[in-house]
This record gives sequence, structure tokens and C-alpha cells, in this order.
Amino acid sequence: MKNKFITFEGIDGSGKSLQIEMLADYLSELGEKILVVREPGTTVIGEHVRNILMDKKNNTMSYKTEALLFMAARAQLMQEKIIPALENNYTVICDRFIDSSVVYQGIGRGLGEKFIKELNKFVTENIEPDITFFLDISPQNAWLRKIGVQTSDRFESENINFHQKIYLGYKKLIVENPNRIICIDANVSPEEIHTQIVNATKEKIKTLLLI
Amino acid sequence: MKNKFITFEGIDGSGKSLQIEMLADYLSELGEKILVVREPGTTVIGEHVRNILMDKKNNTMSYKTEALLFMAARAQLMQEKIIPALENNYTVICDRFIDSSVVYQGIGRGLGEKFIKELNKFVTENIEPDITFFLDISPQNAWLRKIGVQTSDRFESENINFHQKIYLGYKKLIVENPNRIICIDANVSPEEIHTQIVNATKEKIKTLLLI
Repeated sequence: MKNKFITFEGIDGSGKSLQIEMLADYLSELGEKILVVREPGTTVIGEHVRNILMDKKNNTMSYKTEALLFMAARAQLMQEKIIPALENNYTVICDRFIDSSVVYQGIGRGLGEKFIKELNKFVTENIEPDITFFLDISPQNAWLRKIGVQTSDRFESENINFHQKIYLGYKKLIVENPNRIICIDANVSPEEIHTQIVNATKEKIKTLLLI
Repeated sequence: MKNKFITFEGIDGSGKSLQIEMLADYLSELGEKILVVREPGTTVIGEHVRNILMDKKNNTMSYKTEALLFMAARAQLMQEKIIPALENNYTVICDRFIDSSVVYQGIGRGLGEKFIKELNKFVTENIEPDITFFLDISPQNAWLRKIGVQTSDRFESENINFHQKIYLGYKKLIVENPNRIICIDANVSPEEIHTQIVNATKEKIKTLLLI
């Protein structure tokens, strides 16, 4: 059982990208076959959808449209990348997945968690991540990190209240999914965050790291 | 009660576009305010989605992605165009709507009618057309009409078996929705088809035509 499915969640500015890179490097050095993907996107069709979703010009987008576009990109990513990789014994690391839809569209946009969860089941065919790392940093601290960073997309340009709602949404999901979602203190240095992630991974799936 | 919602359905090549134009002209001359829209598209965001859906290069698109992209475009069209128009006493004529998703993705692609119908409810907020005209022409005859027409999209380039399945799917929906869907013989001249549509409209909603 080497094929594990690991997702990273967190508010914008929580440092997911760097941690994904560090974990992928670490597991590669242990001999794992690794596929890193991101949502929305990675596939050609998914990147087209991503462009529509992120473009600040599309500021009249309905919340339902937004939710459905994320789901469309996810369905493509599942069929084209994630399912084949898991079947071929890859460890898949995904930047955002089902939990993002629940907190951003279900809670943040107020569409309700129930239907978003049903949509998630429809597109993932009930394939859930084995481990989800939530990088825990307050919206205020995440915002401070982003000072000086020029480009912001349609989500990053939402106000602090929205990001606060997302943050609390994640906290709720952690309580509801104690066996899957692992909360990582992301207020420390990248190396210290990485150490927490590696230790938690070892703890959670010893077979994955062959120890 | 002038604000009516009329949709047109049928396989490709059944002559929807022309009939929509003729009915819109007819109702306009009677003094109706008319909004004509098409699916997927009409809105800026919807047309971006349409480009992804129709592009023959996207031949690896998963059926679920396809279904969700149509729904995303529909959600945008509802919020941005159809609901405001109905609220402002426009008669809305839409080229394809909920039934297309049921027959193309639910039946044609095999995703099942149940979940597609739930998705339809989610995006339309239970707003159903008052009248749906199904332009009834066999896939064989529709194909003969298209001979010599150069550009075909990802759906038009499907084989005859697919279009046959779609055709039978529509026939099933007609049986299930006898009060909403009106079957129009589309094997005759455009003028004769138009006459059938006008007569059926008069019959169905006398108040709409002020008679």
C-alpha cells in the first residue's frame, strides 16, 4: 500500500505550495512515486476553467456558477490524473480538494454544506484523501505575509471577513473529520512546519514511509 | 401575466434557431418584450464556458465535467439574465435548457437522470419553463440537413447512435411532461413549423397572446 492520497488545505497565504514541494521532495527521496496536482487546474481543461474562476474581470459570477466550475475542474482532475495515478501506485499530493469547496462555497458563499458535499461525492466517486493537512494560520497573519505581493485573484481580493469565515469553516471540518484532517501550526518557520508534517505523516501511515 | 418562459429543445439540425427567431419576431409584433438567450452561453462567463464545452480539442473531457460545465453556464444565465427578465415582464425564449442536460448528459452520457435533475433544481431554483417546444425530426433527417455544413462542434461530431439515444431520451421526457413539452413535427417547411408553434402557444397560454 504505497499509493496514498494527501491533500493540503488552508486559507490563502498559509504556505501550502512550499510545504507541498518539501513533502514531495521528502517522499521522492524515500523512493515514492509522487504526483503533485493543484485545484482548480492541472489538466488542460481544468486550467481553462481556472482562468475563468480566478479572473477578477468575472466579478458578476454567481456563487452557484463558481461552485459548479470548481466541481467541473475536479471531475476532470479525478478522471485524468488522480485515479490513474493512485491505480499506478503513485502517492498523490493535491493542493486544495473537497474541503475547499465545502468551506469556500458551502460556508463562505452560503450555498450550504449539504449540496456541496453531495456534489463532491458525485465528482470524486467517494474517493477521499487518506490525510489532509490543514495549515493553521490566522487570516490576519496570512494577510501580513502577503503584504508586498502584487498579483491577487478573485478570491485573494475578498475582504478579511470572508477569509475569517473560511478559517472558521476549516476549524469546523477539523472537528468533524478528526481521523482525516490534521491541523498543523503554520505560524512557525517553513522547516518547522515541514517537520510537523513529516512526523504527522509517519504517525498516521507508517506503511507509507516504510518504517 | 405576460412574462412567460419558453424553451426550445431538439437534436442538432432540428431547426431550433430559425424557429426561435420567427417566434420572437411574432411575439414582438404583438407588443411583447422578448429576451432570447441560448445555452450554454449568452453571458460573458457562459460564453467562456461554451468555448471549453464545444472545442473539439477537448476530446478527453469527462462526462461529469461536461455536465457540470453546462450547469455552471446555466446558473450564470439564470441569475444574470432569465430571472431579472421574468421579473421585468419579459417573455424569455431559451435555446436549450434543463431537458438538454437530462437527455445529453443523463441519458446520452449515461450519468443518470436523477442526479442531473437534482442539479437542474439547484441551478434553476425550481423555475421551470411554461412551455417547451420539442422540434421532432429523426436523427437521420437531421443529419441529411447538415450535409455540406462545414463546422461541427464536439457534440455534432458524435456518431449517429449517440444522436439516436438523445432522440429517444426526448421522447421519454415528452411522455413524462405532457403539460409542459409540446411535440412539433419538424419534417415540414419552416413556415409550417412556425404555424404549429404559434397555434400551440395560443392554445397553451391564451393570456400570453392577449386573445
